[in-house]
Amino acid sequence: MPFYKIINDPVYGFITIDDELIYKIIAHPYYQRLRRIQQMAMANLVYPGAVHTRLHHSLGAYHLMCIALQELTRKGIDISAQEQQGAKIAILLHDVGHGPYSHALEQVLAEGVHHEKISLLIIEELNKIFDGALQIALEIFNGTYHKKYLHQLVSGQLDVDRIDYLSRDSFFTGVVEGYVGYDRILKMITVHDGELMVEEKGIYSIENFLIARRLMYRQVYLHKTVVSAEQMLQRIIKRAKFINAECQQPLNMFINEPLQNITLEQFCSIDDADVMMAIKNWCNHTDKVLSILCKGILDRKLLKVKYLSALVGDAALLEKRASIAIEFGISDVDAAWLVFAGEATSSTYNFDEQPIKILFKDGSVRNISEVDDALINESLRGNIKKYYICYPSV
Amino acid sequence: MPFYKIINDPVYGFITIDDELIYKIIAHPYYQRLRRIQQMAMANLVYPGAVHTRLHHSLGAYHLMCIALQELTRKGIDISAQEQQGAKIAILLHDVGHGPYSHALEQVLAEGVHHEKISLLIIEELNKIFDGALQIALEIFNGTYHKKYLHQLVSGQLDVDRIDYLSRDSFFTGVVEGYVGYDRILKMITVHDGELMVEEKGIYSIENFLIARRLMYRQVYLHKTVVSAEQMLQRIIKRAKFINAECQQPLNMFINEPLQNITLEQFCSIDDADVMMAIKNWCNHTDKVLSILCKGILDRKLLKVKYLSALVGDAALLEKRASIAIEFGISDVDAAWLVFAGEATSSTYNFDEQPIKILFKDGSVRNISEVDDALINESLRGNIKKYYICYPSV
Amino acid sequence: MPFYKIINDPVYGFITIDDELIYKIIAHPYYQRLRRIQQMAMANLVYPGAVHTRLHHSLGAYHLMCIALQELTRKGIDISAQEQQGAKIAILLHDVGHGPYSHALEQVLAEGVHHEKISLLIIEELNKIFDGALQIALEIFNGTYHKKYLHQLVSGQLDVDRIDYLSRDSFFTGVVEGYVGYDRILKMITVHDGELMVEEKGIYSIENFLIARRLMYRQVYLHKTVVSAEQMLQRIIKRAKFINAECQQPLNMFINEPLQNITLEQFCSIDDADVMMAIKNWCNHTDKVLSILCKGILDRKLLKVKYLSALVGDAALLEKRASIAIEFGISDVDAAWLVFAGEATSSTYNFDEQPIKILFKDGSVRNISEVDDALINESLRGNIKKYYICYPSV
Amino acid sequence: MPFYKIINDPVYGFITIDDELIYKIIAHPYYQRLRRIQQMAMANLVYPGAVHTRLHHSLGAYHLMCIALQELTRKGIDISAQEQQGAKIAILLHDVGHGPYSHALEQVLAEGVHHEKISLLIIEELNKIFDGALQIALEIFNGTYHKKYLHQLVSGQLDVDRIDYLSRDSFFTGVVEGYVGYDRILKMITVHDGELMVEEKGIYSIENFLIARRLMYRQVYLHKTVVSAEQMLQRIIKRAKFINAECQQPLNMFINEPLQNITLEQFCSIDDADVMMAIKNWCNHTDKVLSILCKGILDRKLLKVKYLSALVGDAALLEKRASIAIEFGISDVDAAWLVFAGEATSSTYNFDEQPIKILFKDGSVRNISEVDDALINESLRGNIKKYYICYPSV
Repeated sequence: MPFYKIINDPVYGFITIDDELIYKIIAHPYYQRLRRIQQMAMANLVYPGAVHTRLHHSLGAYHLMCIALQELTRKGIDISAQEQQGAKIAILLHDVGHGPYSHALEQVLAEGVHHEKISLLIIEELNKIFDGALQIALEIFNGTYHKKYLHQLVSGQLDVDRIDYLSRDSFFTGVVEGYVGYDRILKMITVHDGELMVEEKGIYSIENFLIARRLMYRQVYLHKTVVSAEQMLQRIIKRAKFINAECQQPLNMFINEPLQNITLEQFCSIDDADVMMAIKNWCNHTDKVLSILCKGILDRKLLKVKYLSALVGDAALLEKRASIAIEFGISDVDAAWLVFAGEATSSTYNFDEQPIKILFKDGSVRNISEVDDALINESLRGNIKKYYICYPSV
Repeated sequence: MPFYKIINDPVYGFITIDDELIYKIIAHPYYQRLRRIQQMAMANLVYPGAVHTRLHHSLGAYHLMCIALQELTRKGIDISAQEQQGAKIAILLHDVGHGPYSHALEQVLAEGVHHEKISLLIIEELNKIFDGALQIALEIFNGTYHKKYLHQLVSGQLDVDRIDYLSRDSFFTGVVEGYVGYDRILKMITVHDGELMVEEKGIYSIENFLIARRLMYRQVYLHKTVVSAEQMLQRIIKRAKFINAECQQPLNMFINEPLQNITLEQFCSIDDADVMMAIKNWCNHTDKVLSILCKGILDRKLLKVKYLSALVGDAALLEKRASIAIEFGISDVDAAWLVFAGEATSSTYNFDEQPIKILFKDGSVRNISEVDDALINESLRGNIKKYYICYPSV
Repeated sequence: MPFYKIINDPVYGFITIDDELIYKIIAHPYYQRLRRIQQMAMANLVYPGAVHTRLHHSLGAYHLMCIALQELTRKGIDISAQEQQGAKIAILLHDVGHGPYSHALEQVLAEGVHHEKISLLIIEELNKIFDGALQIALEIFNGTYHKKYLHQLVSGQLDVDRIDYLSRDSFFTGVVEGYVGYDRILKMITVHDGELMVEEKGIYSIENFLIARRLMYRQVYLHKTVVSAEQMLQRIIKRAKFINAECQQPLNMFINEPLQNITLEQFCSIDDADVMMAIKNWCNHTDKVLSILCKGILDRKLLKVKYLSALVGDAALLEKRASIAIEFGISDVDAAWLVFAGEATSSTYNFDEQPIKILFKDGSVRNISEVDDALINESLRGNIKKYYICYPSV
Repeated sequence: MPFYKIINDPVYGFITIDDELIYKIIAHPYYQRLRRIQQMAMANLVYPGAVHTRLHHSLGAYHLMCIALQELTRKGIDISAQEQQGAKIAILLHDVGHGPYSHALEQVLAEGVHHEKISLLIIEELNKIFDGALQIALEIFNGTYHKKYLHQLVSGQLDVDRIDYLSRDSFFTGVVEGYVGYDRILKMITVHDGELMVEEKGIYSIENFLIARRLMYRQVYLHKTVVSAEQMLQRIIKRAKFINAECQQPLNMFINEPLQNITLEQFCSIDDADVMMAIKNWCNHTDKVLSILCKGILDRKLLKVKYLSALVGDAALLEKRASIAIEFGISDVDAAWLVFAGEATSSTYNFDEQPIKILFKDGSVRNISEVDDALINESLRGNIKKYYICYPSV
């Protein structure tokens, strides 16, 4: 009997693994580690269901890739078995380079290093371990494979990564309005001139996808309590680095040693649990700023956030810091760790990036933003900026 | 034990009837008749699940009204028991004046008469039958009751009628992207200055509601096959009137007698089955136009529809008619019944009607179209017009 | 581009038609007629959402067949393209012989004729129309095809017919507890010794399927109000035949002429609308029994049903009839049409029919009722009988 | 405006908090700590979605309690505002005494101490903190409050705890067949003679609930891979105690000190993260047994489990141990930590515990197991025992 495993997924029903190499990659510790990294970092402090993991998201994106490839094949696009395997592996591993609390701590723990760079390193490493069997996956992932649409399925404005994380985050938060209709979208994609496109009758589904994404950004990802918690999390690590706070190895290296000392294996050995335990220990740290931030995360006593229509002025900020400094018995400089302004931004559709292209029945191709009566028009250009101020509520 | 009935609803779970008067109204033949009128007329020819009834929609809207009143009460709005009963009855009966195939044949069977006018007549009739117990319902329905927001819940740009029909139509068609998040919307409404408003944090839900509505119009209500079938249905009745085709009573009166001869009771005695049977009988009518249209509906051999970016020119139309006339052995004049142009329109949001108002935390009120970063901006003003041409595919 | 149509289904998402012959069969008037036959007859009087059609059910069963064939193929079972097409057509047409209100009027309108016999006649007819292309479908349907498991998928204790109607009826009634987990069941089937079997790890899913079926029978199909309405419906037709009540053709032939006079085409020309219109007309019939029954169905003033632990005694029945006779001014003999006893039965699992077989990992095969710790054990043998009495509530 | 908070829950939509005391209890660190304790321990190794937390489950059970109280009140049962608040708090805190990985490590970390005992201690502690405001909650929780049915709602064979965890675990695992129809069950409960009962027409819902529970036990809770992982987890802690393995404080106290030294506050300071970090550290422990078990959990290289129809014999066990001892270079005695037999048991319905009572329309009361035609009959008496053997797959 052919190789065949099924995994229950509340979002899609069942995920099927019918390729032994893919199963072995999933079973590898580098992939299993994603079980211990939450997809949405601190969002569960607002949406208690949002505790799903990077592993689950990656499996989901893999499942959508399987559907996408099946649909394209059904439409007569010729994709070889090796290419299909490559595309599936590329999406399975697209997030394997995420560290603890993924986006929230990205470039904070490993300063200046994007997770995709680490994903690439890990894919290369696995390619060695599996004797070059991941070569096509590697090329699809880094965009050098000649069939551009395979890379677009992995990474683009309409890739299966986005479709899965919106579907999954909507599902686990319970924000059902964020539902993106993944199955219809995947029925509407096609390939034309070597590029991924959307059939004419899929326009509304794409509009709906972009609007659902907009809603998820505003209601969930940029929810002010989520923003506060993730700012606190970042400041915990930054403060720990600043004051050279000790914690358990191997996390301690990330805090107290230069990045270049750290190996890929060491990177792969830390996850949410390491950071959470450091936070738990630092609750009693002598550094007040650090302990306040840590206790805040642990007990969900978060900094208050206010969204404003303009960046808060320096004077107001200094005044607030002064009062907080007195309140907590810390210096004004230290108070700046607890009282700060910032901006959160998101865009519904990136007009400047690779556009989503619509293939009309008459064979013509237009960018979605140029379609008549399109919802996705110039009035949506320009990122949404939300200015905020954070401070302890006393 | 208090009066208490529950009805299973796949959309909301359970609908509760805990008021005997309301139960009696539901049990009345005028209301039960709505079981035999489909909510979406011919849409099931494209979406086979869309066979739900006006009765089901009305019960659903009633359910949402119950939730809305509970939420407003919880927020401290004072609504008396009588007013609550009145609002519930008003919404329960808001569509009771619909005739066979509701909107599709509205103003065709009973020319120039809007269903709301008939609903009003029936509510007045039931008010007599129930000794004036529907007085407040009547006033809420016709907009004369002093608490304006109660009427707005029944009929407005954010009424429970729309919220239910979008939810229900999305559910039964399977167009899940049309999901409007009814429960969050109803958590976000409030009353301010005697008017129905939406709390600030509900803005995205309302945007999402309007976009879902836009999608449902484009993908479902104005689906070209649906438009074709409903045009055919209307033309069947118009043609039958034109040639004085006979059918069974009481429908025959609507076809062959002046409207003023018809009583309310007679209006209430016809439903989808009467029209469907007439169609079945007319399949063999000697009038070719009538029989072609009827057989088309019966066997789902629909006129072909093409959407165009501009109104089709007269010359093209005449030419097509001439060829169809020859094909079917009918006159050019008759061919115009089968070959015709038209336009289908919809608007996402009506900027000129009573606007949806947002109540901000600082107590200020703004129309949703005036909110910063709003999706619902001027670029959406202007109805979407889609021009089409219909003709038999031969 | 290959032939490819998709249909929205709220139960399964999308149903795909990728075979032109199948599309043509669906488009045939004999199949389209199933749009006008409700799946659950009068159940919508209790469950207002249950207005879905035989067409929708047949499409759903076809969809499940597609999944089943794909899974079996994936497990290495060799099924040719022709056989796959045959099995899909067989299930698509398995209910095509249903008449108005399907089971509720089966063998009442066409006395003594089971719908499967008519389905067979129609499949034979379509086989002629399509030049023998339905030959394998025909053999799979009537059980003569040599691969027995293909027939078992169409008709057996675990066929896709049952799996779809339970799923669909549960969905449209809103009785979510009736959910049968169709996707897991279809992942668990296999073929062994030429027969359809279930893998060992699928035992609980099958148990759950049978218990869900039990629940649906008790809560829905045998709901006393449903039983009452369907008894009334049957008695309307029987009474009309008894008193030779007139109605429109072609239904009139079924009422007033011998069955052998009726052609297959005539059978295929009637549907729910014909019966409903007859009922509407007979509301004013001079025969009181007929008019009472018809008005009862129309206005949902149903006969009262009581479930009893034993068959009601003759004396009690006669007494009730006498009082009803007086009440309605009819004879005692006529009162027997309105006051009657009966029994409703259902079985969770038929121990004597072809059993559901479990294939264990060690290669052994056991009937599900013989598995250790099985829920489906002898204590469930024996049909459930529920005795009832029906009478007008006055 | 009255106090009012809503929380998104993917299972029920929205959970409402409209009582400030309840909000403060939720905000307390003792409750917030439940965020860091997974509901289903190691089940996510099989069902990747099953990462929901004790906090989420408690909130869900609280939500169901709100519905239950509303339904009972609607049925005329008199429950005072204080009693309602008490019942809500009691269920909110019913699991607050769970430690890391809840059931999986219960009585292993704190030997011989049931989590309900610790819950009671914490409720008492919170009662002090909130000046006696939790007194009724305390009495309802420990069963001393005079209205017995309030305790039965918190803890019984049909309590909201079970209804929530089955609903929630079914939802997050994606095992949809485990759906229990919580809303219908809660519509069917009533109070009679001071006890919680189920109305007659709710029998099938209860049967369905019990069968769903049976399915969840067999398919999920006793899934052999889950059993293996949880056995490994327990053995990690036991082995660590046995060899006095060191880990971070405060977990180290639980491993290396007598239980009586540990304060309630210390108990409340550990959670899943502490245990996970200990496991991560012990992966490199010099004790081979400990490191093998820890690496197994971390990388999901689990012991192989076989379910057997009888307890495995000593000889077979000794032989297996001997071969594993050689394989891993450990003693036979140590091999017994990795090669072991056991039994997993579950019962569908406990016939001997407080039965679920059905209240018939005629006022009579019967245990569900005594109802005619009941599915829950004596053939289900007797726990299901599944014997298993675990060993490393080499």
